[in-house]
Amino acid sequence: MDSSSELKKMAFAQRLEGVPRSFIREILKVAISPEVISFAGGLPNKDLFPLEALSSSAQKLMTSGDRNILQYSNTEGYIGLRKKIAERYAKKGLSVHPDNILITNGSQQGLDLLAKVFINEGDKIVIEKPGYLGAIQAFSVFRPSFIPVPLLDDGIDTIRLEEAVTNESPRLAYLIPNFQNPSGISYSYETRQRVADICRNRLLYLIEDDPYGDIRFKGEPLPSFYHFIPEQTILLGTFSKTVVPAFRLGWIVAPDDVMDKLIIAKQAADLHTDYFTQRLVCQYLTDYDVDNHIATISRSYGEQAKAMIAAIEQYFPPEVKYTRPEGGMFLWITLPRNINSMELFDRSIQENVAFVPGNPFYTDNENVNTCRLNFSCSNESEIFIGIQKLSQVIREMMAENV
Amino acid sequence: MDSSSELKKMAFAQRLEGVPRSFIREILKVAISPEVISFAGGLPNKDLFPLEALSSSAQKLMTSGDRNILQYSNTEGYIGLRKKIAERYAKKGLSVHPDNILITNGSQQGLDLLAKVFINEGDKIVIEKPGYLGAIQAFSVFRPSFIPVPLLDDGIDTIRLEEAVTNESPRLAYLIPNFQNPSGISYSYETRQRVADICRNRLLYLIEDDPYGDIRFKGEPLPSFYHFIPEQTILLGTFSKTVVPAFRLGWIVAPDDVMDKLIIAKQAADLHTDYFTQRLVCQYLTDYDVDNHIATISRSYGEQAKAMIAAIEQYFPPEVKYTRPEGGMFLWITLPRNINSMELFDRSIQENVAFVPGNPFYTDNENVNTCRLNFSCSNESEIFIGIQKLSQVIREMMAENV
Repeated sequence: MDSSSELKKMAFAQRLEGVPRSFIREILKVAISPEVISFAGGLPNKDLFPLEALSSSAQKLMTSGDRNILQYSNTEGYIGLRKKIAERYAKKGLSVHPDNILITNGSQQGLDLLAKVFINEGDKIVIEKPGYLGAIQAFSVFRPSFIPVPLLDDGIDTIRLEEAVTNESPRLAYLIPNFQNPSGISYSYETRQRVADICRNRLLYLIEDDPYGDIRFKGEPLPSFYHFIPEQTILLGTFSKTVVPAFRLGWIVAPDDVMDKLIIAKQAADLHTDYFTQRLVCQYLTDYDVDNHIATISRSYGEQAKAMIAAIEQYFPPEVKYTRPEGGMFLWITLPRNINSMELFDRSIQENVAFVPGNPFYTDNENVNTCRLNFSCSNESEIFIGIQKLSQVIREMMAENV
Repeated sequence: MDSSSELKKMAFAQRLEGVPRSFIREILKVAISPEVISFAGGLPNKDLFPLEALSSSAQKLMTSGDRNILQYSNTEGYIGLRKKIAERYAKKGLSVHPDNILITNGSQQGLDLLAKVFINEGDKIVIEKPGYLGAIQAFSVFRPSFIPVPLLDDGIDTIRLEEAVTNESPRLAYLIPNFQNPSGISYSYETRQRVADICRNRLLYLIEDDPYGDIRFKGEPLPSFYHFIPEQTILLGTFSKTVVPAFRLGWIVAPDDVMDKLIIAKQAADLHTDYFTQRLVCQYLTDYDVDNHIATISRSYGEQAKAMIAAIEQYFPPEVKYTRPEGGMFLWITLPRNINSMELFDRSIQENVAFVPGNPFYTDNENVNTCRLNFSCSNESEIFIGIQKLSQVIREMMAENV
């Protein structure tokens, strides 16, 4: 018997069977060609990275004489950085103790650790529809049963949420109330309050993921679920959008008993997050005004979003619906029912325009007619040309489908 | 009903119930006091970190003008670094393609990802007895059934291994053939060959963890299992012991089909490892002679190991057995049967000497009479004083137990 072919047939663990293939990886490979105008990525704009400031902070740290910056460290994360994060929450009116903060490898690892700590196979999780792809991937490894609840213009559909919570007793609800990925939608004050009322006093944790909350270019900040039901809210945060993504620095805020479990899971997963970059970001936050830096990012993304909306209004047929984000990096378009997003993608890429078809953002397969457009990495001219080309393909497909 | 007490009772996922508490974390808290001579840690010696070289490399990288060093990157890891790793294997006579290398957050994450990819609940895994605590923790999250196989002086007991493999059909065998943690034992050439023969042509992967292989201060390097059965061997490596631990940079070498699964698991876990430090270590490996640096570390640890063995020979009662490592950071002592390691620890810490009792290195609970001693972080004088104090407590306990 040929052992290598036998080995190839060997079953892997079942848990990965349900994990969606890395759809966006494949798309980005197509979109990487320099002549393609890409609205497909989910990257912050690298031109805005505080490279010089980080370089100075790195130099300062490495010439400080403290060799412990390169040693193993504790699982929870650098206490100096956790204090800085707590201070930033305090400015937003949220009282978070540094002991309730765990530093993770981006918020993606937060999702993995929470899944490990909470999800038994078949456990129910509420997720927005459309929902964040990375969360669907991380949770799927632990084989939950997703309950997708639709997003409306002012946030999750609270009538459907209440039905789901009452009838299905989910253990977790995963929500992105600010400039949601993929939709760009934000929850209104009333929706936030109503979500908290629905969840209060149940055996249910709200996971509030907030990667973009600081990148607001319109409107006023609205309160976190932590403001309404702190003991049932788990917060996820990240420096990937406000400082730089390469460092993979994120965090979880969780109640004491959850934190105890998370620390065990984190230690088993990788002992701790890169300690040098924890120290580096803490040094940067100490030496520089990150709020000023965030204001620069927000202004820039605001201009780019405005250009994309102007281009959409100018070129797209009126049958195409779109969201008007107040922050973040994405907007979401809904095509007429008979236009398939994957087909639109295949035809648009021939015209050198890329975006992400809505498909990977759904846990239930349907005929998808939605698309995510990223605006943070294209300039105004690219945005207008790309949207114009996209509109041509949409109009062709609509004409064929009459 | 009080919702918060109700929430506190809420069941977490079952998978963490079987994960050992972080025993060493607790011990290190006791051992951290400055008057304690600690053989408890598992830290490389920070005095040997290449701080100045890394500082120069960081500066070079950050002033290179390449802003992508701070951007999101690909899941597999930086290709430049993967090529450097492949070159290092080539020097050892192992042909590894960079496409078969996945960069991870230390080799600890390698263990987590392999567990995710391979282990269904109840699947059987061969592990050395005593075995590496971090692997026991990482695997336990996925609820396997461990098959502990004893270590002899020249490596794993191949008679017991063959019985286990034949009768129990394990899916994985996790082995550390060089300067094993915790025992310091190395596998002989014959044992390596015999292990490969036993495993060959079975539906079984060998996970060869080799964090210390380069830190050899005695004897000659011996071949990896990859030399004998490459298609069934998965290699784990790390820069934590040869460069610095803070960066959490490790890697997995695996066959194509395993790599496909690992990439899905890695993306779900944290998208990718800190890209900046990947670039930084690659820059350091390009600009500096790491083999020269490793030789310095090996010389130093060799002197420290020699001092510890001399002190043991001078002070310990002859009933105490000990290993004579040819590399790495640990040696292992076996006390007379009626001396309990935990009790020895409790009494030694009163005398300001710390070590790690053998307990967490076993998957089956027994009356443990073994201890791990680390020699990489103490100087000769501390080693002699610490071993002398330890021997006094051992002699007292032996006298009481007559």
